[in-house]
Parts: sequence; C-alpha cells; structure tokens
Amino acid sequence: MSVLVVGSVALDSIETPFGKVEEVVGGSATYFSSAASLYAKVNLVGVVGEDFPLERIAFLRERSVDLRGLQVASGRTFRWKGRYDFDLNVAHTLDTQLNVFATFHPVLPPEYGSPRFVFLANIDPDLQMEVLDQVEGVDLSILDTMNYWIENKKSSLLQAISRVNVVTMNEAEARQLVGSYSLIRAAREILSLGPDVLIIKKGEYGAVMFTDTGYFVAPAYPLESVKDPTGAGDSFAGGCIGYLAECGTPSPLQLRRAMIHGSVVASFCVEDFSTERLQRLSRADILARYREFQQFTHFEALDEV
Amino acid sequence: MSVLVVGSVALDSIETPFGKVEEVVGGSATYFSSAASLYAKVNLVGVVGEDFPLERIAFLRERSVDLRGLQVASGRTFRWKGRYDFDLNVAHTLDTQLNVFATFHPVLPPEYGSPRFVFLANIDPDLQMEVLDQVEGVDLSILDTMNYWIENKKSSLLQAISRVNVVTMNEAEARQLVGSYSLIRAAREILSLGPDVLIIKKGEYGAVMFTDTGYFVAPAYPLESVKDPTGAGDSFAGGCIGYLAECGTPSPLQLRRAMIHGSVVASFCVEDFSTERLQRLSRADILARYREFQQFTHFEALDEV
Repeated sequence: MSVLVVGSVALDSIETPFGKVEEVVGGSATYFSSAASLYAKVNLVGVVGEDFPLERIAFLRERSVDLRGLQVASGRTFRWKGRYDFDLNVAHTLDTQLNVFATFHPVLPPEYGSPRFVFLANIDPDLQMEVLDQVEGVDLSILDTMNYWIENKKSSLLQAISRVNVVTMNEAEARQLVGSYSLIRAAREILSLGPDVLIIKKGEYGAVMFTDTGYFVAPAYPLESVKDPTGAGDSFAGGCIGYLAECGTPSPLQLRRAMIHGSVVASFCVEDFSTERLQRLSRADILARYREFQQFTHFEALDEV
Repeated sequence: MSVLVVGSVALDSIETPFGKVEEVVGGSATYFSSAASLYAKVNLVGVVGEDFPLERIAFLRERSVDLRGLQVASGRTFRWKGRYDFDLNVAHTLDTQLNVFATFHPVLPPEYGSPRFVFLANIDPDLQMEVLDQVEGVDLSILDTMNYWIENKKSSLLQAISRVNVVTMNEAEARQLVGSYSLIRAAREILSLGPDVLIIKKGEYGAVMFTDTGYFVAPAYPLESVKDPTGAGDSFAGGCIGYLAECGTPSPLQLRRAMIHGSVVASFCVEDFSTERLQRLSRADILARYREFQQFTHFEALDEV
C-alpha cells in the first residue's frame, strides 16, 4: 500500500561535536521517504528551488519514491542551519531560509490516485489541511508538528489535529499544546481533540504511544556513537508508517511493532550525517536490530503462586 | 536472605511545584530500607543526632528493619534542603548540613552477622570501603555514588568501585567518571574497573543495566502526577536489591526482573513526599504494577518468513 508524504526537501548545514557538513540533503519529506521506502511505495509532495541538486535524491527514485509531486519552483531551496552540542536532544537553529517554501502550496498530482496512508510532516497546519482537503477515504493520516506552530498557528493546528488519526510531537510540545505538566494528562487532552493515537517522541529516550486504552513505551536503541540527530523524528515516522502501510490494516499489535520499527530506523539515521546511513540501510539490518530490541527489553513474568 | 544497608538517615526540607514539606524523614538508608523491607530482612547502619524523632521511623521496625546499627550521636541530624522545579529530574540543593554525619564511621553490630547482600548508599567512598573491610563472603555488593565524590574523591571512589559487584549512578555521572560522552563506552570503561553490573539511572526515563554480555532497558512508569522525586534512586535500589535478596542467587533473568521491581517501587516513592507512599505500599500494589510494566512494554516478534 502506498504512503503519501507532504513536507520539506531542504539543504541543511549542520554542526555537531562529531563533525560538520554544508548544504547536505535534508528536510522532513526526504528523511521520511528514505525510511518509509524500505517498506512501501512512497509518493512525495514538496518543493525545491532551481538550485537543488536533484541527483542527490536519485536514490529515492531507485527505491520507487514517486517524485512527480515535487515541485521545482523558481528561486532558492529551503535552507536550515543548525548546531547540536553534547546534549544531542537539543537543536540550536542558527539560520532558517524558507525561500521557495514561503509560497508553497501542496498539490497532489492526479497520478498519485487516492492515498490510503498520509504523513503530514511538520509544516504549517494550514498546508496540512490543504492536503487533507485533497484526499478522501484515507485509512490512516498522521500529523507531525512542533513548537513554532503551537505558538503561532494554534487554532489552525488544533483544527488540523481534529482531522487526523495519529499525532506525533515531542514531549515539551505536548505539554505546551495543552498547558499541562503531566505528560499523561497532556496525552489524554490531545486525544480528546480527535486523534486515536498520540506518539510522543523523546529523542534518545525513545517514544511513547498513547491510545484510549493505554500506552506503549518504546525505548531508543543504546547507540555507541551518534553523529547527527537531524531527521531522527522523520525517519522514526518513516519506519513506523512504512511498516503499517506494508501491513495494510493497522491492529494494536502492529502499532506496537511499528513503534519498534520506527525506533530501529531512527537509530540508524543518527549514525551518520544527512541521509547517508538510510541510503545504505537494508531490511536485513532492520530485522537484526529489531531482534536486538526484543532481546534488550524482554523480562519474564513473576513466578506467581 | 538479609540485606545490609549503610547510608544516611536525614531530615529533609523539600519544595516542588506540587507542595512543600519541612524536616521530613529522608536519607538514602531510610528510602532504601522502606523499599527493600517489602522483600527481605534489612539491617541498617547509619547515624542520627539526638534531635531525630525516632518514632517517625518506627514503621521500619514494624517491617523488621533492624536498627541496632543506627548510631545516635550527640549533635544534630544530617539535614538536606532542596527544591525541584518543573524539570523534576534536577534537584537544586539549597542547603546541606552534615552535622553528625561529618564524623560518622560505619560500625556493623556483631548481631548483624555476615551479610550476604550489601548496599553501600551514596556516601564517602572511604566510608564505603570501611564497610567492605568489615564484611566477608558477600554474595552481592552494590555501590551507589554521585558527582560530588567523582569530583572530590575520585581515587577512593575508583578503588571502592573495583571492590563491588554492582555500581549504580546516573547518566551524567557515568559520563563524568570516565570522561566519555557515549554512555555505552562509559559503561564499558566502568565495567572494566571491576564490577559485573552497572546500573545507570535516568530518572523519569527509567534505567539501563549493563553487563559484559549486553544491556537491559527498563522504562520508568508513566505517572499521572509526581509529587516529590526525592528518594527515587534509593527506593529503586531497595526494590531491586530487595527482590534479589528474596531470590537468593541472582541469575540474569532475575537481574532483569529486579530492575523492573526497582522501577515499580521508585514509581510509588515519587507519588508522595518523604516515605509516605512507601509506608502504605503492599506487595499486591507492587505485583499489580509489575504486570502493568509487562503490558506496556511488550511487543511481538515479527512474522518472519
């Protein structure tokens, strides 16, 4: 089953304690597609400027990512410049140039047909709703967001959230959105806005999935070395949603497995800069690390009398 | 099997966003005993001043904690004053008065016999070694420590670490001790100092156990409300070691279960100030929450072809 992703395709300049790169391929839709295309057919909608080196995302096409929805607009590509210090959970934005993204409106090419799985990456909630207006009969719609939209477009964001099945955001953002310190209470409030599932991303501490009936805690993979955390959240979403699209109809059991797939793929993503590691990633790598997750999280029931 | 604990018995004044208490019962040995006594016989070694309201730890005696090793010295009891802001992972120390603790030397009463399980709570590593000098044929010795000793008594601390089976500390402290940013590398270096097991405490993100053969990740219980995180680490140790002492001979399987017991007990500890919640805690409460841990961490293997 195919997945539609709408998000950014960017040129990133990143500095971490472990290295520095200039104008590498980045963006939420890029990271998501790199990950999800290991599981399912991906249709991408986004925008780049005329300066974008399209050959650098040729690997996506080789993985059957459909790029007919990637508009090439006159002007410069969206650029992000960031720095991470030793606390790799915190990105320090040094510069953001929206460029062609400032006037972007998502348009689904008719060739994409009716998508069954839709991932609305972290963009303006009004644009996320423009996507929802163009799709019908979706099985699963997932919305990612961030503090910027909570602060500047809250009412649009709340409306967009009410229209999707799954919402993902980080811990601080969940608390900020509903003004509750307790994550559990925040989760309950966010679910009451409409979605069936809330996934809270906790960076190097993993992710938690909340539903009406309970929660599931997925740890992060304890990595020997992290080079660049950029794209971890989007590759998490890519592994998670890619796996669900492969399954077809998400059951609670598959949702849990999907969370582990997301964690596995994200753990590979951060091992190198840009999409480097995701480009070299295979299903065998994923399977091996999935088994490791089972191994390092399993504990026995008590011997009860 | 009985457990010996050597640590502080204190009077704490604590402020959190959820309340404020003055001169309540605290200290590492107190929290540890409150937790471990739900599983095993506990023998306590520590010191209080003449001003200590002994009736406030009467509940420990009722749980068969032997207090014959608790010295009552002339002078005032050890006092700690701290504040937590909304990030409950960080304690801000407002005041520390060592008082009788400044001249304390642990003495094991002959009545305690030869302990098989020893918990050296977070005190001066020279005192921890004084305890090790007084015991023989121990099955399992566990040492907890903190940044203060890493900064001020590093060589004693390294020596003490080389003499025990299990070491516990928090994430930042592990990195600080061996000067490695990667937690995995730090863990490997700490294990190379002598211990068989390293337990890294991550506060609201749970705990990780490292051994020569791998690691085990225990999440924390997602709590609706946390009132006071004081004592979480020591009650974690109490649940963990108490369970192991109850089992008798720790196997890898039991070590994992013990990590969950520790997490369960710590999750109750932080639900109220001081030892309030631990005093009301029952084995049935623990068992129910242990089952919840199984429920919210379990995921299925993949359907492999």
